Amino acid sequence: MLLGRVVGTVVASRKEPSLEGLKFLVLRQLDVDGKPSGGYRVAVDAVGAGMGDVVLFATGSSARQTAVTDKRPCDGVIMAIVDTLEVDGAVAYDKARDG
Amino acid sequence: MLLGRVVGTVVASRKEPSLEGLKFLVLRQLDVDGKPSGGYRVAVDAVGAGMGDVVLFATGSSARQTAVTDKRPCDGVIMAIVDTLEVDGAVAYDKARDG
Amino acid sequence: MLLGRVVGTVVASRKEPSLEGLKFLVLRQLDVDGKPSGGYRVAVDAVGAGMGDVVLFATGSSARQTAVTDKRPCDGVIMAIVDTLEVDGAVAYDKARDG
Amino acid sequence: MLLGRVVGTVVASRKEPSLEGLKFLVLRQLDVDGKPSGGYRVAVDAVGAGMGDVVLFATGSSARQTAVTDKRPCDGVIMAIVDTLEVDGAVAYDKARDG
Amino acid sequence: MLLGRVVGTVVASRKEPSLEGLKFLVLRQLDVDGKPSGGYRVAVDAVGAGMGDVVLFATGSSARQTAVTDKRPCDGVIMAIVDTLEVDGAVAYDKARDG
Repeated sequence: MLLGRVVGTVVASRKEPSLEGLKFLVLRQLDVDGKPSGGYRVAVDAVGAGMGDVVLFATGSSARQTAVTDKRPCDGVIMAIVDTLEVDGAVAYDKARDG
Repeated sequence: MLLGRVVGTVVASRKEPSLEGLKFLVLRQLDVDGKPSGGYRVAVDAVGAGMGDVVLFATGSSARQTAVTDKRPCDGVIMAIVDTLEVDGAVAYDKARDG
Repeated sequence: MLLGRVVGTVVASRKEPSLEGLKFLVLRQLDVDGKPSGGYRVAVDAVGAGMGDVVLFATGSSARQTAVTDKRPCDGVIMAIVDTLEVDGAVAYDKARDG
Repeated sequence: MLLGRVVGTVVASRKEPSLEGLKFLVLRQLDVDGKPSGGYRVAVDAVGAGMGDVVLFATGSSARQTAVTDKRPCDGVIMAIVDTLEVDGAVAYDKARDG
Repeated sequence: MLLGRVVGTVVASRKEPSLEGLKFLVLRQLDVDGKPSGGYRVAVDAVGAGMGDVVLFATGSSARQTAVTDKRPCDGVIMAIVDTLEVDGAVAYDKARDG
C-alpha cells in the first residue's frame, strides 16, 4: 500500500455499467514523511473517505478485494483512513493534530 | 486508475484471435491538473470514447473486468469518460467547457 | 499495452518445462511517436512477429491470456502486430511505409 | 521481492472490515547493498517483523498468498525476515552483526 | 520478462511457512545490451541457476506459475537460464563465451 491524501473527485456519467454508484477520488501520493511525492492516483472509495483525509490505497487485483470493487474494472481502492503514521520513532502524521 | 486523453488509434490486422473487433486507442497520460505527464498507454475502449476525450483507464488484471476484455490478453482498458475533474477545490477539467 | 519493436531473441535451453517451444523475443519499447523510449522487455510471441516488426505487448497476468502462454510463468506477450499507428491526426508509423 | 527495513507503523481505525487486526508496517526500500533507495511501502506483517528488521516483501496478488492476507485488499506483505544478504561474495547485511 | 544476473543470496529462517525450502537469489537487472541497469530483484529460483548466470525472470502473478512457487507469496521467479542473447543482429551475451 501507499499513502495518499484525498484532494479531488472525478465525475463520469458514461462508464462501464458495473461502476455505477462508485465514488472516484483523486489522491495525491504522499512520501513516507507525509509530504506530496509528485504522483497521483484515482481510486474508488471503500471506506467513506473525505476531502483532505490521509488514506492507504491498494492497487492492482488487490483493489478488487472489497464489496464495492469486486469483479469491477477498478485498479485502485482506498481501504483505510489513516489515524496516525509513525516513522523513525516520530509521529509524521496525526489525524487529530494535522487532519 | 489514471487519467488520459485519447489522441490516436492502433490498427493491427494480425493479432490474438480473441482480440478481434476490439478498438485500441492511444492515450496520453495526464497529470492531476489535466496536463500531459509524458507517458502513454494503448488501451481497449469499453465505453465508446472519442478522439480528444479525457478518460479514466485501468491497467493489469482489472483491465479484463469488462464484457469486451474478459479473458483477453489486454492490460489496459478505458472504463469511464470524464465529465469533470475537480482538484483542490477548482475544476481542473470540464468536458462541456474544455472538451 | 505498450508499443515495442522486435530487435532480438533470447535462447534458453534450461527453463521451466512449461515454457518449452515458446519463442522469446527482445522488444525495444517505443514512445507514442514510434521512437525508442529507452526501456526493453522480453516477451513471448503469440502472433508470429518477425525481426523489426512494431508490435503491441501486454504484461502481467494479461500476458497469460493466450493459448501459448496460458498458466505459464510468462509476464509479457506480443498479442498484435501493428499495421498503422496514428497519433494527433498524423500517421506515426505505417508498416507498409516504414516496416 | 524487494528488500526493506521496518521503520514505522500506520494506525487506521476506519478500514475495510476484512483488514481488522492486521499490522501495517512502513518499510523503507533498500538497495541491493542494504542502503535506503528512496522509496517506501506500507505492508502487512505476516511473519512477526519488528522495528529495524530487514525484510523481504512481496507486492501485487502475491501479497495475498498468506493466511492473514488471503482475499483482502492488501497489495504488500512482509513474508520473510532477512538473516543474511550476500552480494558479490560479500556479506552486505547480517542480522546478528548489523541488526 | 527482464534479464538479470545472479549476484547473491538471501537467507531468511523466519518466513511464511509455504516458502520453506525455496532458494532466494539476488538479481542485478540487466539492460538489453547485457549491462547492469541499476535495479535489482530478489527472485525464487525454479531452474537451478548459479552465481553469475544471466537469467530471465518473471514478476507478479506470473511468478507463481511454477511447481515451486504455486500459491506462495512470491512475486519474482527465475524461469530460464539464458544461453544466448542476440540484439540488433549481434550476440550481446553468450554463456559459453561470456558466462
